[in-house]
Amino acid sequence: MTLLVKGGTVIGPTGTQRADVLVQGEKIVALLDPAFSGTITPDEIIDAAGKYVIPGGIDAHTHMELPFGGTAASDTFDTGTRAAAYGGTTTIIDFAVQKTGEVVQDGLAAWHAKAEGNCHVDYAFHMILGGVDDESLKAMDQLVGEGITSFKLFMAYPGVFYSDDGQILRAMQTARENGAMIMMHAENGIAIDVLVQQALARGETGPIHHGITRPAALETEATSRAIALAEVARDCPLYIVHLSASGALESVAQARDAGRNVFAETCPQYLYLTLEDQLGAPGFEGAKWVCSTPLRSKHESHAKDLWKGLRSNDLAIVSTDHCPFCMKDQKELGLGDFSKIPNGIGGVEHRVDLIYQGVVDGQLSLERWVETIATTPARMFGLYPQKGIIAPGSDADLVVYDPNGRTRISVDTHHMNMDYSAYEGVEIQGRVGTVLSRGEVIVADGNYHGRKGRGRYLRRGLSSYLV
Amino acid sequence: MTLLVKGGTVIGPTGTQRADVLVQGEKIVALLDPAFSGTITPDEIIDAAGKYVIPGGIDAHTHMELPFGGTAASDTFDTGTRAAAYGGTTTIIDFAVQKTGEVVQDGLAAWHAKAEGNCHVDYAFHMILGGVDDESLKAMDQLVGEGITSFKLFMAYPGVFYSDDGQILRAMQTARENGAMIMMHAENGIAIDVLVQQALARGETGPIHHGITRPAALETEATSRAIALAEVARDCPLYIVHLSASGALESVAQARDAGRNVFAETCPQYLYLTLEDQLGAPGFEGAKWVCSTPLRSKHESHAKDLWKGLRSNDLAIVSTDHCPFCMKDQKELGLGDFSKIPNGIGGVEHRVDLIYQGVVDGQLSLERWVETIATTPARMFGLYPQKGIIAPGSDADLVVYDPNGRTRISVDTHHMNMDYSAYEGVEIQGRVGTVLSRGEVIVADGNYHGRKGRGRYLRRGLSSYLV
Amino acid sequence: MTLLVKGGTVIGPTGTQRADVLVQGEKIVALLDPAFSGTITPDEIIDAAGKYVIPGGIDAHTHMELPFGGTAASDTFDTGTRAAAYGGTTTIIDFAVQKTGEVVQDGLAAWHAKAEGNCHVDYAFHMILGGVDDESLKAMDQLVGEGITSFKLFMAYPGVFYSDDGQILRAMQTARENGAMIMMHAENGIAIDVLVQQALARGETGPIHHGITRPAALETEATSRAIALAEVARDCPLYIVHLSASGALESVAQARDAGRNVFAETCPQYLYLTLEDQLGAPGFEGAKWVCSTPLRSKHESHAKDLWKGLRSNDLAIVSTDHCPFCMKDQKELGLGDFSKIPNGIGGVEHRVDLIYQGVVDGQLSLERWVETIATTPARMFGLYPQKGIIAPGSDADLVVYDPNGRTRISVDTHHMNMDYSAYEGVEIQGRVGTVLSRGEVIVADGNYHGRKGRGRYLRRGLSSYLV
Amino acid sequence: MTLLVKGGTVIGPTGTQRADVLVQGEKIVALLDPAFSGTITPDEIIDAAGKYVIPGGIDAHTHMELPFGGTAASDTFDTGTRAAAYGGTTTIIDFAVQKTGEVVQDGLAAWHAKAEGNCHVDYAFHMILGGVDDESLKAMDQLVGEGITSFKLFMAYPGVFYSDDGQILRAMQTARENGAMIMMHAENGIAIDVLVQQALARGETGPIHHGITRPAALETEATSRAIALAEVARDCPLYIVHLSASGALESVAQARDAGRNVFAETCPQYLYLTLEDQLGAPGFEGAKWVCSTPLRSKHESHAKDLWKGLRSNDLAIVSTDHCPFCMKDQKELGLGDFSKIPNGIGGVEHRVDLIYQGVVDGQLSLERWVETIATTPARMFGLYPQKGIIAPGSDADLVVYDPNGRTRISVDTHHMNMDYSAYEGVEIQGRVGTVLSRGEVIVADGNYHGRKGRGRYLRRGLSSYLV
Repeated sequence: MTLLVKGGTVIGPTGTQRADVLVQGEKIVALLDPAFSGTITPDEIIDAAGKYVIPGGIDAHTHMELPFGGTAASDTFDTGTRAAAYGGTTTIIDFAVQKTGEVVQDGLAAWHAKAEGNCHVDYAFHMILGGVDDESLKAMDQLVGEGITSFKLFMAYPGVFYSDDGQILRAMQTARENGAMIMMHAENGIAIDVLVQQALARGETGPIHHGITRPAALETEATSRAIALAEVARDCPLYIVHLSASGALESVAQARDAGRNVFAETCPQYLYLTLEDQLGAPGFEGAKWVCSTPLRSKHESHAKDLWKGLRSNDLAIVSTDHCPFCMKDQKELGLGDFSKIPNGIGGVEHRVDLIYQGVVDGQLSLERWVETIATTPARMFGLYPQKGIIAPGSDADLVVYDPNGRTRISVDTHHMNMDYSAYEGVEIQGRVGTVLSRGEVIVADGNYHGRKGRGRYLRRGLSSYLV
Repeated sequence: MTLLVKGGTVIGPTGTQRADVLVQGEKIVALLDPAFSGTITPDEIIDAAGKYVIPGGIDAHTHMELPFGGTAASDTFDTGTRAAAYGGTTTIIDFAVQKTGEVVQDGLAAWHAKAEGNCHVDYAFHMILGGVDDESLKAMDQLVGEGITSFKLFMAYPGVFYSDDGQILRAMQTARENGAMIMMHAENGIAIDVLVQQALARGETGPIHHGITRPAALETEATSRAIALAEVARDCPLYIVHLSASGALESVAQARDAGRNVFAETCPQYLYLTLEDQLGAPGFEGAKWVCSTPLRSKHESHAKDLWKGLRSNDLAIVSTDHCPFCMKDQKELGLGDFSKIPNGIGGVEHRVDLIYQGVVDGQLSLERWVETIATTPARMFGLYPQKGIIAPGSDADLVVYDPNGRTRISVDTHHMNMDYSAYEGVEIQGRVGTVLSRGEVIVADGNYHGRKGRGRYLRRGLSSYLV
Repeated sequence: MTLLVKGGTVIGPTGTQRADVLVQGEKIVALLDPAFSGTITPDEIIDAAGKYVIPGGIDAHTHMELPFGGTAASDTFDTGTRAAAYGGTTTIIDFAVQKTGEVVQDGLAAWHAKAEGNCHVDYAFHMILGGVDDESLKAMDQLVGEGITSFKLFMAYPGVFYSDDGQILRAMQTARENGAMIMMHAENGIAIDVLVQQALARGETGPIHHGITRPAALETEATSRAIALAEVARDCPLYIVHLSASGALESVAQARDAGRNVFAETCPQYLYLTLEDQLGAPGFEGAKWVCSTPLRSKHESHAKDLWKGLRSNDLAIVSTDHCPFCMKDQKELGLGDFSKIPNGIGGVEHRVDLIYQGVVDGQLSLERWVETIATTPARMFGLYPQKGIIAPGSDADLVVYDPNGRTRISVDTHHMNMDYSAYEGVEIQGRVGTVLSRGEVIVADGNYHGRKGRGRYLRRGLSSYLV
Repeated sequence: MTLLVKGGTVIGPTGTQRADVLVQGEKIVALLDPAFSGTITPDEIIDAAGKYVIPGGIDAHTHMELPFGGTAASDTFDTGTRAAAYGGTTTIIDFAVQKTGEVVQDGLAAWHAKAEGNCHVDYAFHMILGGVDDESLKAMDQLVGEGITSFKLFMAYPGVFYSDDGQILRAMQTARENGAMIMMHAENGIAIDVLVQQALARGETGPIHHGITRPAALETEATSRAIALAEVARDCPLYIVHLSASGALESVAQARDAGRNVFAETCPQYLYLTLEDQLGAPGFEGAKWVCSTPLRSKHESHAKDLWKGLRSNDLAIVSTDHCPFCMKDQKELGLGDFSKIPNGIGGVEHRVDLIYQGVVDGQLSLERWVETIATTPARMFGLYPQKGIIAPGSDADLVVYDPNGRTRISVDTHHMNMDYSAYEGVEIQGRVGTVLSRGEVIVADGNYHGRKGRGRYLRRGLSSYLV
């Protein structure tokens, strides 16, 4: 069975080309010059005339069903991956969790159990290490062999996920040996907790104080420290997650100028939303945007600098850090005490659109759009060339994107399991059209044709970015 | 007539893939999964099993037949492009010259006259502005319309090519308007000339003093100044040619971190050769390596930093600055006075090999090899996607590269019109195999099948790198 | 004849102390603990109770009677040094000028002729080199022997004072040998002249365009270039005059961090006045504040950064660049063409007050006040310990400063030969009381007791700041 | 009773002057021009002809009798201050210790008890906080009132002195309020302890591994972190102790360029001794030089950069971190396990000489010698103008220093209670002559005239360096 995506403009990481894409079964088998593709007679044709054809999006940072703060992220692997599919994301890399005190492999097994049979698109795992010790270091080696080649540590959340600098160093040394990537939540949580306690003691309990007590300086500090520790671990590969502060970006840029194996992602919320306008919304509404790292002040240059970083590749990737909680019963846990608001924003459905809007706004080129949402995540996390590129032999994960369409984001129309939208009312000057996952049309004309369980687990290789 | 490059590993700017490349006439018409390409019956097959298939090299910096210092570069467009073809370079961008006092269009016409009917591979032109005034600024606009979208200025060579900072600023302002790229020879020639005169007055006349009187600090200064002037011209696109000094690289990296439209190239000579070992060779032999910017000291970290810059993309491109002069009658003009040695090194034939050796040595990934020698030059100078990429619709400029072959560089075997080799005896752990230019096999098994005059002039668009 | 300045608080560069100062003839002969000074019976007593006693101010940058733009600075050595005395400045270092084409020694002789017999306070000379050639380089050596140990060059004003980078390098090399300081007007005048001509061509003729056509980026560029050239001259001592731009300060700070012999001054106008509020005053009024480097935008952080630089010693000195022109007949030369407005602001009378106000405003400590206006200029320019410090053996140049007094700056009350004040209406929360110059009370209770001709020429030694 | 130090050259922080110093009782009562001092008839005269007269040295970092690693520093307040006096140091600031779990005031009381009646020269205390909690924060306020205005925290030594980042932040916030200085031992002790355990596990037990397991990168990291935390504490004054790494210096310099209240000291051991030559001495001999931060590699530029930092004032002070342990019974505790070697080097006796040698070697000016060993410590730690300056009203702490004398450092001749010298055999081209402490000659011609118990406790004010 062959299918031809015909007449579109294929966008790759280095530019655009008029080309037809021939799919056979689950794979792309040919890229064809339109003038030549007449020689092929496919079983089916998707008309992409006037549209962009891009590799399916890869969201390298999601937290489906994550237990956090006495509740759990409201999207299951079922609801979350379905919403992802609607938004043109055909692969997610979710974070399996080793809770403190738990055996790493047990944590991973639990995640496999949650995901297996429930996903609408392909999925892979990073592993969160909740405790670094001899056992978990050994487990790192084993997991690399099983296709889990990136491990996340936290410099924040003491008592929950926090690793101290000695634990971080040990994990980095192990990663340096086995080739894995260390991913870092870089905020000085020890100092932040002091600020949080002080704010609460002063009666500063509203959502905005979540942001005020997590100052940019403490993200910058932790980012610099992580980079220093990776240097001590003989340039262990390091990936900073959800970077939001200009100073942290500067630290990353310096390390990269120095030729270091240092990478970073940002998220749409840091590009579009601010401390004052969202987190500082009246009453408890700001709780919708409580996430960590927090939204930053619009009176500083963070968002502008992050777009710049995406252009210059000091920021390699846009992920969502998708971790949705409903206002009702979930965010409300923090009424009267911002520190009890579950941390997280849902966005897995809107990343492809939101970054495309950056193209419309002149912030990014089409090529960088595709790189930051698909190609680079694939290369960074060992999924290339199976994913992230439109090329013969690659999985036929494709999005036909309509630059003349329009998308209005709203809780009324989104498919994530959330009772609000972090981007309510935002208009995108483009629209996800047809979505193929491994050769199968799962979204077309806004209608869903996929199904739970069709998504497969992906064993990943090492990052392509290490020489 | 169709031709299939079969069984090879196609290397693109983001990675490698097993794919077959189908050529029809001058164009690539399809990339095919090997498992699928059996369905195609080509007229001809090139066996690329066990080999790399890469886009034909683009040398963005050559000076064929350049008049300089009372003589002229020893390669004509005929001999030079033939040598290029041997080395896997299927496009050159040469520098047309407006001599001071000359009309820009006349200078360009002279270059067209030299090249037309003589080239073995496709060629395009940058334009050297020997004088910035109202007329030449108008000419810039006209030339952009004719496919010449980059203009080179010199901060060195007072009285020959030198432009002062006011002229540079005016040209940059014009480029900012018409979208062209300003290319800069960034050395403080005014200060250098003082050092040269002082050295000669002290009797320091040998070749090494060419390098000593052009200190890295004066390349760094000029690079920083060019970047500052481009800022005053509202971020005019700027491309630093033949960057050789660590400090200059640092200036470029800072500008890029700041999101500026600043780019740079380096050349193989700065990656492999040094002030002490080559320029400081006994007697007059160092004259072989007199070029500007000069070779740098091995006691500093220049070469190491340049490799790092290539990895981090602060250096975007490797060009050759091919400008060969024979020792006899040419370099010899500077016997007893280094300042009279014609400036230039020939290398158009060896760039693809020399940078591949960087891959073997662990300096670069295969992808960066292809990017720096082909894809990025194409994108930087408005030739993409016609050139620089293996994709349907692109010109069938292809090199089948054998990682198991060996190449020994020598004047005895090279094809450039030089009576010495700058890289005599260097061994490359790889070898250019078959070379296709617009679908035509011009090199195969070390034999030449091309011919003078088959190369075509390429009109270029604007750079792809400007958002 | 002895005189005791009694009961005051002596402020030195490292702190304050209650001490009495005993003067005999022209010299300070003792500093005495108040408890001990009862044992001394002076001929005269000056009551300094409740007041500060500081070394007489040294203004290291004045231009008395400077011919410029078809007119001459309106203060003569007579009027200018009398005004200085009123303001607590008891030494000036004026700039003797070698006009282009003139013999250096002739230019110096002319300046001696202007000053001799006319000064109210002691004076020394820097030398402006209007042309760097073999003769003037020889003259530098000679002048160092005559107590002129600093030489000013201009990167601006092509055709007037401008030196090209080769000339600058040669002068720096000579200075490196003979120990002199190179002072630099660091603006890229070649590029500025292009911007000026373009602005005039667009009909932008008003005073504010003087500032707009001299952007901060071109001061930063020139400052960096001067620092680079000084490096090539094996770390020749370099002093940046009238630094006004944050970026230039950053370049200086980096050079100083690197241990380089790089120093800088700023002027009160850059600390208090702005492009918008003064230079952009309605009509032609902005002409009052036309000076180069120009006043900077209040929307950027220049002034704040300059205060910071004064605290951190990246800015060593506050001078005035005193170069007054009257509005009538002088500034008016530029009606309808800002480029014809004579460049300069008068301020020699108000520097001590204006920087004291910085102490009141919490910008500087009392010690840094004294350092930046007296001690450091003396040390920087080879007048220490004769000047700049209250110590036995030093000249008895003293100012009794009243922190409880008030000073209102106005054309109605100032003593400079100007028909306006650049600081009209500014209130200072302090007041110059008694002023002694070499033991002689020249100002007391606002009355003048000095006289023309009493000021002496000072031969200077080399800078104290070079290890 | 009056005493005249006659005929010498007085060196102050801004330069040198021929002046006589008149002492009455414990105080300096006059500085006199030599030509004038004939009018005074003192009771006693000290001939300083041909010699330098400098303020008595202030060693701002000593650890007399410090319990550490199961033993205690071998100098008591008696032996240590006597040795200090021999070496021209007339004030020490020692570190009182609050052990973890102890009440701050009790720790201080213990230190008063050790010192009282035992010191030969004046002394003051910093306070080490072994635990930051509500009680100790309150104690900080109280101690500031008692003249203890600086508090030391440790980022190293977990389980002993270590404070976490939250504790550090709280102490900094308190200091920001009460004006105190936070002093920081800046090494990432958590990461270091991992490296130490790994080294020991590999059998790397010799003294050099003390240095190898404390890499410069971890001092740099901790220094940057301390600076970041101080920023979060609204620019709390911060003083980095015993800075030894180039990178840490760079962090300090950047903070200072930014106008921050950040200061640092280095110690003679980092200026003269190296990882390879001393710590890497054969067998167990390297134990002599086990101190933290450790000696740095001679293959890097640390020592050169530290001298540069002293010149540029990015390093403000030279202290000794005097903490002597004998080889026998003390250092020997670490035979077979470097981590058990007591950390410390003795040097209180040689600081004035060793830094004077820097003057001889062209590293520092005479003024910076005096600033870094006396004036700046006094100003930094609230002892100015009582100490650190030769001025009327100041304590008559004076050293007559002979630039024509010679000093050979050796265990055979030193007066510290150590069985080796860290500088054995080093020759100083200068010599401490007469030493006065509060007007009393305590050292003359190498003979000791002081006595135990004559030293007084000094209540300190706040630092002079905060605007």
